[in-house]
Amino acid sequence: MTNRVYNFYAGPAVLPLPVLEKAQKELLNYDNSGMSIMELSHRSNTFVNVLESAEARIRRLFQIPDEYAVLFLQGGASLQFAMIPLNLYLDNQPVDCINTGNWTKKAISEINKVGSTNLLASSEDRNFSYIPDVDNLKFNDQASYLYITSNNTIFGTQYQKFPKKNNNVPIVADMSSDILSRKIDIQNFDLIIAGAQKNIGPSGASLVIIRKELAERAKESLPTFLQYRTHIKHSSLYNTPPTFPIYIINLVMEWVEENGGLDVVEANNNKKAQLLYNAIDESSFYYCPTEKTSRSKMNVVYRITGDKDDLEKQFAAEAAEKGLVGLKGHRSVGGLRASIYNSQSLEAVETLVAFMQEFEKKNK
Amino acid sequence: MTNRVYNFYAGPAVLPLPVLEKAQKELLNYDNSGMSIMELSHRSNTFVNVLESAEARIRRLFQIPDEYAVLFLQGGASLQFAMIPLNLYLDNQPVDCINTGNWTKKAISEINKVGSTNLLASSEDRNFSYIPDVDNLKFNDQASYLYITSNNTIFGTQYQKFPKKNNNVPIVADMSSDILSRKIDIQNFDLIIAGAQKNIGPSGASLVIIRKELAERAKESLPTFLQYRTHIKHSSLYNTPPTFPIYIINLVMEWVEENGGLDVVEANNNKKAQLLYNAIDESSFYYCPTEKTSRSKMNVVYRITGDKDDLEKQFAAEAAEKGLVGLKGHRSVGGLRASIYNSQSLEAVETLVAFMQEFEKKNK
Repeated sequence: MTNRVYNFYAGPAVLPLPVLEKAQKELLNYDNSGMSIMELSHRSNTFVNVLESAEARIRRLFQIPDEYAVLFLQGGASLQFAMIPLNLYLDNQPVDCINTGNWTKKAISEINKVGSTNLLASSEDRNFSYIPDVDNLKFNDQASYLYITSNNTIFGTQYQKFPKKNNNVPIVADMSSDILSRKIDIQNFDLIIAGAQKNIGPSGASLVIIRKELAERAKESLPTFLQYRTHIKHSSLYNTPPTFPIYIINLVMEWVEENGGLDVVEANNNKKAQLLYNAIDESSFYYCPTEKTSRSKMNVVYRITGDKDDLEKQFAAEAAEKGLVGLKGHRSVGGLRASIYNSQSLEAVETLVAFMQEFEKKNK
Repeated sequence: MTNRVYNFYAGPAVLPLPVLEKAQKELLNYDNSGMSIMELSHRSNTFVNVLESAEARIRRLFQIPDEYAVLFLQGGASLQFAMIPLNLYLDNQPVDCINTGNWTKKAISEINKVGSTNLLASSEDRNFSYIPDVDNLKFNDQASYLYITSNNTIFGTQYQKFPKKNNNVPIVADMSSDILSRKIDIQNFDLIIAGAQKNIGPSGASLVIIRKELAERAKESLPTFLQYRTHIKHSSLYNTPPTFPIYIINLVMEWVEENGGLDVVEANNNKKAQLLYNAIDESSFYYCPTEKTSRSKMNVVYRITGDKDDLEKQFAAEAAEKGLVGLKGHRSVGGLRASIYNSQSLEAVETLVAFMQEFEKKNK
């Protein structure tokens, strides 16, 4: 496959080549069924096996205990922004929030349609370039829940440590952009949501990990589809699930398991991020606007010193010509961004670093 | 491809072989991008072109005027059952409903969570074996809207003519299982919803055709994702859409256009249905529990005379061994069912009819 490029898009993002090759091979006839995986009834044993396998792999990789349900839903994080408060909000018990950027803001605005929020901390004062210190926050014992975004694709920040559960208030985390990129203590969380299209598969499916008893908070008057309870009861088969995206998720999880599991994934992610941040830090031509203690290992945001917009555009364009695509920063902040999710290869990052050095020499 | 079977599943269902072959061919490198279609940013020009092409084809095929939006959403009909009343219900103006089976019942129960319903007609008295006469119904001028299900997968019935719009009450139709299977007068409807996984693509996407002004009914306090208005404003790109399912929908629509459009599709569907119903009617061994004037051209429901459960199971099992799969009736009604959506070939139906005759000879 010499015609494949290095893909640094923030999501939908690069998938492991062996996964794509397997999907391609069996696209017309899955597991000797004589049908494409897309043509199989979601109630057929063949598909149910795929769904159960994907769930089992995620449970193994993340060491998820039985008191949690693992669900595959639709609508991405955006539908979750609505479902979370609709299911979990308790009257007159504002949600504690830590605001670390656009995605938290969107989530907060949806919570405020259902109830209200209490801003525990925010990094907006320095343009979201850091994650607030979580050790000295005053958590509210009466909050409906505590809400955080674990990784911020636009500003390139990521929690290095999480708020510790110290009362009965559930912790809810949007992990869309760093799910399964590192080991975490699942039991510190009560609800984790993630769109699939960064680390675990294509767009069109979302992963929800929820402490089952928490789903009982929802009023029965809530539309059936919008209750977590419904999907727990039907093991993600209340309605027709997004079968092809779930199939790809299962293949990606198989690839992770065959490559050594979360330990290896985490070590690789550390290595890739270190390589790229070192290249930025060691150069006076590039700089990283994100504070060192808060840097994301998934989305490396950087700029050309002096914030030279035109030169940054030229960088992204020349890189694309050389097969390094998706390096433009988010339209709201400009600059450059390299997304280096689980499926990104070390080779891709090495190639990017070499290009950066070459570009620096030419344009310094 | 000698190892492909004849797939009669009710959905997800058979897809055109040329579509699958094309998807397979370009799965690792879409349109010389060096990436899989699954790996492309939904904001990239390459993907936006796919989305716009799918919309344009549907507009051409269905002759949809500009005052309607064509949206690709997630969550299937089940999320639509919630979104429709949340967006369209007017206080103290019950929804007029015509109950033709399980899917209408589910929709009604979700409307009743938001407001209330008025049952205009129902075919429950004869186990949903017919579509009520729509000419002599007393429509309520004050209804929030009129709600129908155009085709009923479980009972094998289908509207042959639709209620005619005769006042200002919007008509809303769930066409999940017969969308784009025949010409209809779009302007008779104000909102059409359909899960993709029967006639137009794989599961994971839903098609929504809505008169734009109707979307303005929704309160701004409704969660952003649940407002049709949001998705109209952002041309289905408010959030990350299910990119791969939309890509396949575009290929299926291309296949429909290249094969002559909706006229040819409708003629083929008539031919396939006639062949199968004739075989049933001409035999005393099989019978069709659906009234002749209401028979579905998408889901042919039939039984072995005497309602012989064991023999029907044997039929489905022997058929599957011969490469005719998915013929068991829905678990709630038993019997047999052959789903013959747009992508089903005449050859598949001919092979099924031959098998039916052979099975009859052996088991009469």
